Amino acid sequence: MKALENIISVFRKFPGVGPKQAERFAMYVVRASGPEIENLVEALRTVKSAVGYCRECFNYAENGLCSVCAEPSRDRSVICVVERPQDLAAIEKARSFSGVYHVLHGAVSPAAGVTTEQIKLKELMERVRAADGGVKEVIIATNPDTDGEATAMFLTRALKPYVDKITRIACGVPLGGDIDYMDEVTLGHALKGRTKI
Amino acid sequence: MKALENIISVFRKFPGVGPKQAERFAMYVVRASGPEIENLVEALRTVKSAVGYCRECFNYAENGLCSVCAEPSRDRSVICVVERPQDLAAIEKARSFSGVYHVLHGAVSPAAGVTTEQIKLKELMERVRAADGGVKEVIIATNPDTDGEATAMFLTRALKPYVDKITRIACGVPLGGDIDYMDEVTLGHALKGRTKI
Repeated sequence: MKALENIISVFRKFPGVGPKQAERFAMYVVRASGPEIENLVEALRTVKSAVGYCRECFNYAENGLCSVCAEPSRDRSVICVVERPQDLAAIEKARSFSGVYHVLHGAVSPAAGVTTEQIKLKELMERVRAADGGVKEVIIATNPDTDGEATAMFLTRALKPYVDKITRIACGVPLGGDIDYMDEVTLGHALKGRTKI
Repeated sequence: MKALENIISVFRKFPGVGPKQAERFAMYVVRASGPEIENLVEALRTVKSAVGYCRECFNYAENGLCSVCAEPSRDRSVICVVERPQDLAAIEKARSFSGVYHVLHGAVSPAAGVTTEQIKLKELMERVRAADGGVKEVIIATNPDTDGEATAMFLTRALKPYVDKITRIACGVPLGGDIDYMDEVTLGHALKGRTKI
């Protein structure tokens, strides 16, 4: 059963897919109708050919500009910096941000050997400089983990000469979270970042 | 972002894939290289064109006969009846069965409206009759749930006139299982099916 073994090994490369799920996907393909498979093939190729990076913020975009940058009502003086397009999508779902974004496509990581050259940092600096004082605030929304924090620190230092206000998203106990299940670092952040009520 | 939304909806149809995983798959496709995607397309099409049913047992097969039925050493007088090709693969992995199989591709289910016409039951009957007494035993290995048991009961009645020995796989506590976490029906089966040591 070479064809099945082959497609199982291809599905294994999908993020988070184990041997059992890859097998189930293969069975799904066998059971699926011809048009269904052609539909999948078409969708794959369309994504591959149509989706690129936004020329402004490096979010995924279908026509040069992503859906956020294409909105005229966005406040271009506030840039929220995120690691991945998924992070941007998550913040967009929260509907509480009206500025624009910059997607780094990663975080600097001494452990994994990711340097500032490998993320879209140079592009962010160019963008801020080209705005010539037009960028009033940069919100750093990298993940609150070691790499994200290192990236935030690095960004802060690099942006300081060009931007007045550089902020970092709040780190604390998530809504609905259980305090006695929180790790001590999160709790430490939650306490340090406490606000008056 | 029509192309991305489209592929996410296509991935949502994969078994066990939720909105979050479908999104991750879409991102994987965007990041993947052109040749990787063409590799996936090729694998999909090959499975679709090469994989069919075994003409003997209805397992998946690439050339008319599946790998089990193509083995000359298999004992064709014992047929193990399973619901799905995955069940057959699981039993093969146990390496303790040397007979052949029959894949029903489902189980009768009054609740889901699956009748005996919709599973490969007629084919099993024809196969047993064509063997003209050559089938000495039929082992019914449908799942030990409502539909599987109903199917087993139905099969037993239908096969009785043609096969001397009709057996059902043992139902009990799985190896390494915790007795106090077992449901009462399984425990009842385990007690009823106890063997002398």
